Amino acid sequence: MTLNRRFTLVARPDGLPKPSDFALVDEPVPELADGQFLVRNHYVSLDPAIRGWLDDAPSYLPPIELGDAVRVSTVGQVEASKAGSIKAGDWVMGLNKLEHYSVAAEGGFTYPIDANAVPSVTNYLSVMGAVGLTAFFGVNDVLKPKAGETFLISGAAGAVGSIAGQLGKLAGARVVGIAGGPEKCARLLNDYGFDAAVDYRGKTVDQLSAAIGEAAPNGVDMVFENVGGTVLDATLLHLNREARVGLCGLISEYNSEHYGTRNLWQLIVKSARIQGFLVSDYLHRFPEGGAAMAKLVAEGKLRFDEHIEEGIDNALPTFLKLFEGKNEGKLILKLV
Amino acid sequence: MTLNRRFTLVARPDGLPKPSDFALVDEPVPELADGQFLVRNHYVSLDPAIRGWLDDAPSYLPPIELGDAVRVSTVGQVEASKAGSIKAGDWVMGLNKLEHYSVAAEGGFTYPIDANAVPSVTNYLSVMGAVGLTAFFGVNDVLKPKAGETFLISGAAGAVGSIAGQLGKLAGARVVGIAGGPEKCARLLNDYGFDAAVDYRGKTVDQLSAAIGEAAPNGVDMVFENVGGTVLDATLLHLNREARVGLCGLISEYNSEHYGTRNLWQLIVKSARIQGFLVSDYLHRFPEGGAAMAKLVAEGKLRFDEHIEEGIDNALPTFLKLFEGKNEGKLILKLV
Repeated sequence: MTLNRRFTLVARPDGLPKPSDFALVDEPVPELADGQFLVRNHYVSLDPAIRGWLDDAPSYLPPIELGDAVRVSTVGQVEASKAGSIKAGDWVMGLNKLEHYSVAAEGGFTYPIDANAVPSVTNYLSVMGAVGLTAFFGVNDVLKPKAGETFLISGAAGAVGSIAGQLGKLAGARVVGIAGGPEKCARLLNDYGFDAAVDYRGKTVDQLSAAIGEAAPNGVDMVFENVGGTVLDATLLHLNREARVGLCGLISEYNSEHYGTRNLWQLIVKSARIQGFLVSDYLHRFPEGGAAMAKLVAEGKLRFDEHIEEGIDNALPTFLKLFEGKNEGKLILKLV
Repeated sequence: MTLNRRFTLVARPDGLPKPSDFALVDEPVPELADGQFLVRNHYVSLDPAIRGWLDDAPSYLPPIELGDAVRVSTVGQVEASKAGSIKAGDWVMGLNKLEHYSVAAEGGFTYPIDANAVPSVTNYLSVMGAVGLTAFFGVNDVLKPKAGETFLISGAAGAVGSIAGQLGKLAGARVVGIAGGPEKCARLLNDYGFDAAVDYRGKTVDQLSAAIGEAAPNGVDMVFENVGGTVLDATLLHLNREARVGLCGLISEYNSEHYGTRNLWQLIVKSARIQGFLVSDYLHRFPEGGAAMAKLVAEGKLRFDEHIEEGIDNALPTFLKLFEGKNEGKLILKLV
């Protein structure tokens, strides 16, 4: 009998997730009911948002239940189907679980994709997936760059940040990235075409603010915020009048008590705003965003990187790379 | 010779302003140049914003210079004029100084007002002035209430907050106010027609959050934020999806190191925004706002209170009432 290996949550993490918060369990592959299909998950997207779902806190999705496998986006191939529109062998993507086999239902959040339309099917978890669309809608809908504006991106070497910066460049903005360490800063300039890079590592808020001031001497008109903490506090000191901050993530705060942001007063004196957003706000516009991203990729206008690790037994150390800043590009776990 | 008594800044306050930060000086009334006029200041508006101008920090107006009189809005009567469009005896209002006589220039920020159009000329420093317009543009332009929405206001018994709440009621919102102490909360319900009141005094963030949850069981769609600190942190936990927070002031933070706001992550999970604003953003729309406020006042649709103290020698203790929450209505100092 084929077993389904699953990466399950057994305790809610206090701070950084640790091995005892999870268990690998082998269970029988479930039987299908009418309208369902069985997905063999080939690739799993490891995203910062998962950390929030591990907590028992009100959010935009319910907490992952104790004992259940961890919720993740996957790309996989249909192994068996009792759904009319889906047949064995189809490639699909969707919001499934970190397990070898997921059961999905027709009309749910798992849908067919065209594996031949992209260089690698993993692209559906990076530039063509939620990551690319987060950057697309964050930049083009929340921030709306104008040519000549200064656009600051934190977590800029990350999967979302690196695409956001390139979209800003395509819109004619001057793009400044904040990243951790000289190697990542070099990648911003050399691989992603940023105009300037700031290394936040080892800097106080004042030192980071000084570095941002050098990299963005005319102030900042737009911010794509992925990090929060001292990075956001230093950034707020450089906002221009009517600046807009798109708040996409606060990855520096996800494993600790939330940082206390001290410089919100800058929003008043600059008549600036912070706009939180989720890519799921744009579900109804995914076709539009997906088509736009596909065109940019086909035209070779976007550079994107994927960092692929292997094996469900390797799930936790791979996930933790996100919080150590150790991934280089979109972090993906290969299961098959 | 007539002397001009002036309330001057001699040291930049560290925390709450103290007597040694200021000096009362008597100087000759200045001579007028062509195009100038001399204003006998009758009433002075004491506003939280003044605290920011005492610091040597970049803001939307330059810091008040050491040795100069403190910048304030005043209403007064023209004593002498070398300006063609202004004559002695005219009532004027403008951004002047805390002194018996200010020199203003034609085409500047001091302009004639119709003293007969209002029950008291002090109304130009309250409901008809920056206070009323801050509430007007904050509610109608930044927040744009829709009927049936829940509207939370902090500093709700204050000059701006009490008007903002009434404007929200006129727009059909359910209005909840946060204020300090049972007397102020009673005034919200009895004098200003709020639907519910929350007393923040003596409450932790968790306790305040619980009280907000009781007063706004369906969550909060709009916030008019005047206070910041723990009040804002508790408020953020109750935002509905796509809630908007108009950030008008952070009075709880003006005399101390800025509070660290921990709940910004709520902006992401609720796709909500914080929009800072200044009434001066709307200078070009003051005629529109002034006319709208005048109509509401004439129709008896707005209740507003003025708290008037007397004498320039009393300037500092009067100003400090703002930070002690001891003023009941718009705080005004009468000089003549």
